[in-house]
Amino acid sequence: MATVDRWLLPDGIEEVLPPEAARIEAARRQVLDLFQRWGYDFVVTPHIEYLESLLTGAGQDLDLRTFKVTDPQSGHLMGFRADITPQVARIDAHTLRREGPNRLCYAGSVLHAKPRALSTSRSPIQLGAELYGDASPASDVEVISLMLEMLELAAVPDVHMDLGHVGIYRGLARAAGLSGEVERSLFDALQRKAVDEVAELTADLPNELASMLRSLAELCGSREVLDLAQGVLMEAPEDVHRALDELIAIADALELRYPELPLYFDLGELRGYHYHTGVVFAAFVPGVGQSIAQGGRYDDIGADFGRARPATGFSTDLKTLVTLGNMVLDQPVPGIWAPDSHDPYLWYEVKRLRSDGQRVVQALPGQEVTCAPEAGCDRQLLLRDGRWQVAALS
Amino acid sequence: MATVDRWLLPDGIEEVLPPEAARIEAARRQVLDLFQRWGYDFVVTPHIEYLESLLTGAGQDLDLRTFKVTDPQSGHLMGFRADITPQVARIDAHTLRREGPNRLCYAGSVLHAKPRALSTSRSPIQLGAELYGDASPASDVEVISLMLEMLELAAVPDVHMDLGHVGIYRGLARAAGLSGEVERSLFDALQRKAVDEVAELTADLPNELASMLRSLAELCGSREVLDLAQGVLMEAPEDVHRALDELIAIADALELRYPELPLYFDLGELRGYHYHTGVVFAAFVPGVGQSIAQGGRYDDIGADFGRARPATGFSTDLKTLVTLGNMVLDQPVPGIWAPDSHDPYLWYEVKRLRSDGQRVVQALPGQEVTCAPEAGCDRQLLLRDGRWQVAALS
Repeated sequence: MATVDRWLLPDGIEEVLPPEAARIEAARRQVLDLFQRWGYDFVVTPHIEYLESLLTGAGQDLDLRTFKVTDPQSGHLMGFRADITPQVARIDAHTLRREGPNRLCYAGSVLHAKPRALSTSRSPIQLGAELYGDASPASDVEVISLMLEMLELAAVPDVHMDLGHVGIYRGLARAAGLSGEVERSLFDALQRKAVDEVAELTADLPNELASMLRSLAELCGSREVLDLAQGVLMEAPEDVHRALDELIAIADALELRYPELPLYFDLGELRGYHYHTGVVFAAFVPGVGQSIAQGGRYDDIGADFGRARPATGFSTDLKTLVTLGNMVLDQPVPGIWAPDSHDPYLWYEVKRLRSDGQRVVQALPGQEVTCAPEAGCDRQLLLRDGRWQVAALS
Repeated sequence: MATVDRWLLPDGIEEVLPPEAARIEAARRQVLDLFQRWGYDFVVTPHIEYLESLLTGAGQDLDLRTFKVTDPQSGHLMGFRADITPQVARIDAHTLRREGPNRLCYAGSVLHAKPRALSTSRSPIQLGAELYGDASPASDVEVISLMLEMLELAAVPDVHMDLGHVGIYRGLARAAGLSGEVERSLFDALQRKAVDEVAELTADLPNELASMLRSLAELCGSREVLDLAQGVLMEAPEDVHRALDELIAIADALELRYPELPLYFDLGELRGYHYHTGVVFAAFVPGVGQSIAQGGRYDDIGADFGRARPATGFSTDLKTLVTLGNMVLDQPVPGIWAPDSHDPYLWYEVKRLRSDGQRVVQALPGQEVTCAPEAGCDRQLLLRDGRWQVAALS
C-alpha cells in the first residue's frame, strides 16, 4: 500500500495512490465478479446508521470499535459501520424477505475507532459474501469454498485454515449452567489458552463437565483432534455432539474439494465477534499474525430485525488481499499522446480512439511531445497526409 | 433507488438492493473506465481525516455539512469526508508532487450531516475527475468535455449546462474594496437574485462599480449575455476582463465540440462551495432542481498543503446518474442450476463453468430444481451418460 503522510493522516488511516489504487480497483472487480458467478447478489449498505441497528446482535467488540456521532436531523445516536455483516443480515431479515436461501455479497470501507491489532489499518475495505436461510453444513462448505476460491484468485500463497465450532463451548457452558460474566470470562480464558485461569473458573463445576471444558484449550491440531474430541466429549450433551458432527461433515467435504489445503482444528478458539453461533473459520498465511479472511455461522443475528434466519459467511480486507497476494491484474495500457490543437478533426479522432477503448491524453498549452512518456503514452497522434494518425513516439 | 426502511435508516441514508446495486456497480465501472481512457489516474482517499486537513481551503458550507468525531487514538478532532475534491487536491499538492499537469479521478461515498437540499440524499456516491497544474481554459474545456461524455455514457437525456465565472464578481468586489462579511452577504444576495438586497448592499459604492455589481444579477441567459457583459463591464478592472475572456474562450470551444448542447450563462450564479476561483459549471435536466453534475476551477486549494497549483474538475452522484440516466448496462446473466450432490465430478464441472464466466448456483439440501428460476437460473446441470451436462430446465 502506498501509505504516506503519516503526519497528515490519522494513525491507521491510509490513502491509496496510483498505480496501487488501480490494482485495488481491478482486484475489487475480479473478486465481486467471482462472487457473482457463485450466485451472490451485490448490495450496498450505508456507511452510517442508527447505532441501535448497527450493533444489533453484534456484541461488545463491535461497539468498542465503532465511531459514534449524533444525527443533527433526528437527534439520535448514529455509528459509522465497523463491520458490514450485521447490515447485510438486516437486509436479508427485514428488507429483502426472500423465502428460500439468499446469497448476498458486498464491498466497502469500514472504519475502526480502535484497530483490531497494533499497526493494523483502521480503514479496511471489507469484501464479503453471506448465505442466509439454510442451516445445514452444506452452506458452510459453500461459503468456505468461495473464500478459498477468492484466495486462489488473489494468488495468496501458502494459505492454511483454522476451523472451530462455537457450539461445542456453548453447549458445555449451558450444561454447566454458566452464563453472563462467568461464561464470558471462561470464553476469554479459552481464547487465550490460559489453562490456569480455565482451571480456576471451572473449579466449582461437576468433574465431568469441568474436565470437558478444560480439554477445549488442548483440542487443537490437525484432523485427529476431531477423533480425539469424540472420545473426550463422549458424555457431553446432545447439542455438543451435533456441533462436533457438523464440524466433521464440513471438514470431510473440504478435504474432498481441497485435498492439498492444510486444515487445523481448534475447539477452544472462538474467533470473531460474539455473534457467531456455529462453525468459525479463518485463513492464514505464514508470517502474518492476523487472519487474512475469516467468517462463520451466526444464525440468530436477524431475529432483532423480525426474522431469525440461519446465516453463514466470510469477509476479507481488499487491501490486505492485494498486498499479500500476487493477483494477475491488467497492466495499465500505454496511452496515445494528442497534441494541443483546436482542430475539430483531432477531437473526432481522439473521441473515436477512446470509444475503441484506447487511453488518449491530450497535451495542454505549452506541453510538447516530450511530456508523453511521463503521461504514460508510448504513441502519438500526428497529422500526416491531411489525416490524424497514430504513430510511434519519435 | 431501492430506498426502503425509512423507519430503520436515518433520513437521507439509503441502502441499495439487488438488482439496483448491480446496476450501480456496473455504472461505476463504466464511468471509471471512461476517466481512465481520458488519462485520469484513480486514487482512493480516506473516509475519515483530521478535520483540519479535510476542511482546508474548503469554506464554511463544507464545515456545516461535515460529521465530526474525536479520534480516540490521538484526541484530535476528525471529520467524515463530505466532499472528496479537497482530499484529491491534497494528494496532488502534497503526496504525489508531480511536476507537470496531473489528472486524477475517484469514486466513493461521502456523508452529509445536513443534506444539500430538502429530500436530498445524505450519502451520495461521489464520482469525479480533477486536472491540476494548468491554468489555461484548455483544462476547463477538457474537464467539462469529460463531464459531458460521462453524461452521454450514462444516457442522461436533455442535458443543459450553466456556466459562470467567480472571477467576475471577485474582481468587482475587490475593486469596490468589499471584503469579509459584506462581500459574503452580497455574494449570497446575488446567488438568490435578490435584486433589492443587492441594491441596498451596493448603495454606498461608487456609481460605476455599484451598477456593474448590480448588473450581475441580470446577466443571465444564452450566448448573447457574454457580448452584453463585454459592454456593461467595459470599465471593469483588468482581472474582470480576463475572467470574461476565459469564459468566452471556454464557451467557444464547447460550442465547437458540442454544437447541440444548450448552454446558459449566469454571471451572478456562483455555485459550489466557496473554494471556486474561476469558471463554474453545472449540468441540469428538466424537472430536477439540483444539478446532476457540477464543477469548476479552484486554483488556490493546494496552497495550505504546501503547493498552490491550478486546479479544475467536476463531480457527480453515481446514484443520481443511474436514476436519471438510461445507461446500457449488462443484463444479469441467467445462471445454471446445480443439484445438491456430493459428487466430486459435479464440483469439477461447476468449477469449470464458473471459470468460464458462467453463473452457477448450487442447490442446498432440500432444494429441488423448481427453485432454479427464483435463483435466476434458466439451465441446469444433469447427469447424462455418466457426464454432468448443461441442459434446459425441464
